[in-house]
Amino acid sequence: MQRYDGRTPNDKRPIKISTNFTQWAEGSVLIETGNTKAICTASVEETVPIHLRGKEQGWVTAEYSMLPRSTQTRTPREAAKGKQKGRTLEIQRLIGRSLRAITDMKKLGERTITIDCDVIQADGGTRTASITGGFVALALAIKNLESKNLVEKGTVLRENVAAISVGIIGGTPMLDLDYSEDSTADVDMNIVMTENGQFIELQGTAEGNPFNDAELAKLIELGRKGIAELIYEQKKAIDLTFING
Amino acid sequence: MQRYDGRTPNDKRPIKISTNFTQWAEGSVLIETGNTKAICTASVEETVPIHLRGKEQGWVTAEYSMLPRSTQTRTPREAAKGKQKGRTLEIQRLIGRSLRAITDMKKLGERTITIDCDVIQADGGTRTASITGGFVALALAIKNLESKNLVEKGTVLRENVAAISVGIIGGTPMLDLDYSEDSTADVDMNIVMTENGQFIELQGTAEGNPFNDAELAKLIELGRKGIAELIYEQKKAIDLTFING
Amino acid sequence: MQRYDGRTPNDKRPIKISTNFTQWAEGSVLIETGNTKAICTASVEETVPIHLRGKEQGWVTAEYSMLPRSTQTRTPREAAKGKQKGRTLEIQRLIGRSLRAITDMKKLGERTITIDCDVIQADGGTRTASITGGFVALALAIKNLESKNLVEKGTVLRENVAAISVGIIGGTPMLDLDYSEDSTADVDMNIVMTENGQFIELQGTAEGNPFNDAELAKLIELGRKGIAELIYEQKKAIDLTFING
Amino acid sequence: MQRYDGRTPNDKRPIKISTNFTQWAEGSVLIETGNTKAICTASVEETVPIHLRGKEQGWVTAEYSMLPRSTQTRTPREAAKGKQKGRTLEIQRLIGRSLRAITDMKKLGERTITIDCDVIQADGGTRTASITGGFVALALAIKNLESKNLVEKGTVLRENVAAISVGIIGGTPMLDLDYSEDSTADVDMNIVMTENGQFIELQGTAEGNPFNDAELAKLIELGRKGIAELIYEQKKAIDLTFING
Amino acid sequence: MQRYDGRTPNDKRPIKISTNFTQWAEGSVLIETGNTKAICTASVEETVPIHLRGKEQGWVTAEYSMLPRSTQTRTPREAAKGKQKGRTLEIQRLIGRSLRAITDMKKLGERTITIDCDVIQADGGTRTASITGGFVALALAIKNLESKNLVEKGTVLRENVAAISVGIIGGTPMLDLDYSEDSTADVDMNIVMTENGQFIELQGTAEGNPFNDAELAKLIELGRKGIAELIYEQKKAIDLTFING
Amino acid sequence: MQRYDGRTPNDKRPIKISTNFTQWAEGSVLIETGNTKAICTASVEETVPIHLRGKEQGWVTAEYSMLPRSTQTRTPREAAKGKQKGRTLEIQRLIGRSLRAITDMKKLGERTITIDCDVIQADGGTRTASITGGFVALALAIKNLESKNLVEKGTVLRENVAAISVGIIGGTPMLDLDYSEDSTADVDMNIVMTENGQFIELQGTAEGNPFNDAELAKLIELGRKGIAELIYEQKKAIDLTFING
Repeated sequence: MQRYDGRTPNDKRPIKISTNFTQWAEGSVLIETGNTKAICTASVEETVPIHLRGKEQGWVTAEYSMLPRSTQTRTPREAAKGKQKGRTLEIQRLIGRSLRAITDMKKLGERTITIDCDVIQADGGTRTASITGGFVALALAIKNLESKNLVEKGTVLRENVAAISVGIIGGTPMLDLDYSEDSTADVDMNIVMTENGQFIELQGTAEGNPFNDAELAKLIELGRKGIAELIYEQKKAIDLTFING
Repeated sequence: MQRYDGRTPNDKRPIKISTNFTQWAEGSVLIETGNTKAICTASVEETVPIHLRGKEQGWVTAEYSMLPRSTQTRTPREAAKGKQKGRTLEIQRLIGRSLRAITDMKKLGERTITIDCDVIQADGGTRTASITGGFVALALAIKNLESKNLVEKGTVLRENVAAISVGIIGGTPMLDLDYSEDSTADVDMNIVMTENGQFIELQGTAEGNPFNDAELAKLIELGRKGIAELIYEQKKAIDLTFING
Repeated sequence: MQRYDGRTPNDKRPIKISTNFTQWAEGSVLIETGNTKAICTASVEETVPIHLRGKEQGWVTAEYSMLPRSTQTRTPREAAKGKQKGRTLEIQRLIGRSLRAITDMKKLGERTITIDCDVIQADGGTRTASITGGFVALALAIKNLESKNLVEKGTVLRENVAAISVGIIGGTPMLDLDYSEDSTADVDMNIVMTENGQFIELQGTAEGNPFNDAELAKLIELGRKGIAELIYEQKKAIDLTFING
Repeated sequence: MQRYDGRTPNDKRPIKISTNFTQWAEGSVLIETGNTKAICTASVEETVPIHLRGKEQGWVTAEYSMLPRSTQTRTPREAAKGKQKGRTLEIQRLIGRSLRAITDMKKLGERTITIDCDVIQADGGTRTASITGGFVALALAIKNLESKNLVEKGTVLRENVAAISVGIIGGTPMLDLDYSEDSTADVDMNIVMTENGQFIELQGTAEGNPFNDAELAKLIELGRKGIAELIYEQKKAIDLTFING
Repeated sequence: MQRYDGRTPNDKRPIKISTNFTQWAEGSVLIETGNTKAICTASVEETVPIHLRGKEQGWVTAEYSMLPRSTQTRTPREAAKGKQKGRTLEIQRLIGRSLRAITDMKKLGERTITIDCDVIQADGGTRTASITGGFVALALAIKNLESKNLVEKGTVLRENVAAISVGIIGGTPMLDLDYSEDSTADVDMNIVMTENGQFIELQGTAEGNPFNDAELAKLIELGRKGIAELIYEQKKAIDLTFING
Repeated sequence: MQRYDGRTPNDKRPIKISTNFTQWAEGSVLIETGNTKAICTASVEETVPIHLRGKEQGWVTAEYSMLPRSTQTRTPREAAKGKQKGRTLEIQRLIGRSLRAITDMKKLGERTITIDCDVIQADGGTRTASITGGFVALALAIKNLESKNLVEKGTVLRENVAAISVGIIGGTPMLDLDYSEDSTADVDMNIVMTENGQFIELQGTAEGNPFNDAELAKLIELGRKGIAELIYEQKKAIDLTFING
């Protein structure tokens, strides 16, 4: 069976991770998954939120936004409306939790790393792209701290983490839905998984028909495959940064 | 194995659903699950959001809040701070999606039902209690519409929906965590499921160690059991309302 | 002369004060005056507002809110709108002033007690019920502090305070208006009075015809009677709490 | 007995009402009561709030503000803070109610008059000065509508309304407290009264000791005297405007 | 050539600066340029913004607002809308920069002077009037500090600064446009200049046709003339304050 | 004389305009001037602001934002703070005015074009880059409308517009300051000029020493040269888009 863009149900979209995409951040990437494109930057600040002060640990947090015309029709700017939408807050909480789950806060030391994910073009899967790209930005920032001997080499990040969406369309489970597929899906699921194949987050929603255990199992199998591929790309991107750079 | 309050890992907390708890709403309940207590009301308005006007369908939406001293230490009032927290927005989006998933919007007609879930005492599981209680309030409001012949009897709600939390503590999967258990859990998962045992929402988060497929399967099994029990209680509460009322 | 619900002009509505209504607060009550129901909690925090620090005195403040469907038709949630209405701010300022007036701030010590009044069902007189119930919550919290020897027994609260509304309908002064009566009243007055029969607050408004001195005198006489009855109920509720508890 | 500025307890401060103080408004005054100075303007708009449309009646509303340095030390600007204080909202609601109470909304026709009261120098009694001056601005705007035959002459305003503060200091009831007196008063009361000596609003607050019936009677007597004098000044100011203008 | 109000293109409007216009501020003026009237006050606070603490220097900042009915039709109040317009923020940033440009922050010492410019009647040129009047308020506040020996006499302010608008209407460059002229101008330019004839700010905008170098030169020549006249008036007002005061 | 990066005072930084940078917008570019990079998109909506409805004309407006880590140290996100800074509002007003100045609103028809300028990397001159790039995005959107025969070919835009900064550092006027130069400049000026060499906007600010007529003339001469070069690049980018596309 073939999808409208030629993929089989098991195929994810092509992915491209361009590191050091912007100049000032301690870590930055442009991540492209199909037509979805996001800039992820990691900013290191030598302070922690008030409730963590003096606890000899660090913090990782995330913010998410879409450029107004990243979408098919223009979406009003949240800064102009004076508040962030529930969807935005929900996504940035998810990104933050996912990245904190693989970070050793003690080893990070009393500093905060903020991951900013700004979507410049949206075609489905912006939150999973943000996690996958956000991990790379975070890893680059940690390398940066390692190179200055501010953290112990190889201890801060326990393993890679990546995320992908899966869904059921017309009864068929499929990997990595784009926007047009997502609009017609009965089930939409985001999976955040570590390099070792364990779950960090699993969020499935029946937007049309509810789903059963067998469908859940198939969706997870697809997601696992996609995430393994994404983690391979993350590693390649990080390695190339240091060979070239 | 026994939990600190005497329950086994497979036991949910005692539940009590008091219908017609307040006077004005088309449907209202006080739901108590252990020490967690929430008032859920359903308000019917003969209008729909702008983007649905003229589409011959209805809408179901939800709002969620906690009284300031529903918590162990006082939580500042969102109205006083001038904005709702991300957690609040995330929860009310979840409640709304869950209830919309079992509602036939065409059969509802051009009207909006707003489910307000106000937690008056919090001890873990407030979002799942809100969904479980919110369904009862919704069902009562639909009965009210049926009694006035405004909707066709037995067609608007496809089946019951309820929600429960499960988690892993010290390696053991457990049903229906209270606040003190939730604070020490490695994994926290909320399951929203229909009467027919299918998933509406599945949201699992590793707060400590990530989880694997076997653990996921066990958590789902526990959740399925708990939800069957909750739906039994929902039905009993709705039936009694009409026998007594 | 009889009112539509059978009361004479001199009768207040039935009142019920249920103490220890919620679990976490240092003091809490459910107060019911006719169909008006409000939860009042008192929360003790071991800090004072910045401008009082170091002055060896405490503070008592209040917040007020109505659940969206406490009213006949649903009222939009203030937290969702992002600001509190003028009416809300005015009421919570009144509650705070009334309770501060009978509290010895020096004896309270450097701590703040916040009285949260959340109306779960509204049928007129919500601000006066909040003051009357708020006093009981405050008194319970003070008992709590006394039992821990944090304040000197019997010194913090000088005397009881309660509040009731009076009004003129069709030329007749009446006690304790409910919502339907309030809507047709020419004059609406809220009286906050101490156990010793002295005024803390007196707020009268001519919504239709202005009122004269004779009418004012009659309204005050009615209010004084109602407040004596309310204070009797406050005392009974507090006493019973400690006999039972 | 003499007050610190030479007044007896029964004396109000000198008052000056300068009409047509600004150029664009349909009615405008600078009112000075002692050192308290406020600009009151009345703006006529040929529309009514949504809930009154089609009801063949008008509306009168008020807004109140203090210039940042109208006070002894600079008060932060509400527009910069992004919200109006409870005190501001409470005062502007009082001004609006007081002026609506003497206006025949049917005779006004489907138009809104907004009274803006901006305090340029504050020394106590700003809310009562705003009501007293606001009435004059309103009356001038009505004269303006009469002169264009948009409303029927002499029918829109039923009678004059004015306001003054009274208080108890050291046991002595006094008329028209200035800021330094107000700071030491045990009781502070604002009286809004019509030309015919009837009450529109009566708001008394015990800031220190509560007050009794005899004290209330004395305060009202003082207020009545002061209001009669203010209404005389209002009439003179309005008459002179039309003799000169 | 004559303008509609009798002025030649080279004439500014009559100007009047009334010092000590309000009671509490360290410096205050009412400035009137034609029908434009603004109250400017200078408030001294013995603190500086956080980022300047410990740097042994002071700060000068400005806020700007228009009374709602300072304009021909009523402008909604920014405090009521909960945010300041872009125009407001732009103008108050301009006023602040202009006054800081002639102030020696080291000589001022660790204190902040806030210039509040509140327009009570608007007829064009409110921002330039605010700068011109704001300088006088600032100078009076500095005199006040000098008189208390808190700053060294004659060192804080380097020279006078004033501002005026110029514009091109129907091809003719003109000085000091009023509102009706401004509405039809092709070019609108605000010039902020020191006593020594040098530029602090130059902001020209083509609202209709763009302008060329020759027109720019002519506009600057007019502005220079007007500013010299304004500075003469500033000096006279300051001098008279101290002769009389 | 050579600048720290090798440029002479008369040199602008290298510029690169990449058209069709994002997928959905009717016009989009990535503009790079030295290390400053901004995405400018033009979005066409078939509606106009309320006050222009029925007037048979269109509207052009702009919004501006910086990604949080476009700057050397992370700048808090305006959407998270809930309001846009004065600087942001000032810049987007400037961009909008500049682009409206060369657009024939009648020829555009009843539609709105919104230019979004999002800075992804900042190194001085972000507002001028936004105007220069914003013009190209606008021109592409107009070409798009022309290609659908929705507007008349070649009539909507009167001429090109571009912007550049100039400044005085250590007494030397220089073209196109980067961030490090800007920080030490005595004078900072932004010039917005048309293809025909006429001014749309001229905004000069003395941040240190004020400037005189001769310096102004020199700054304008430099700006004029830079703008001619920018307009050449704009034209090349637009032409290449249509040769390639």
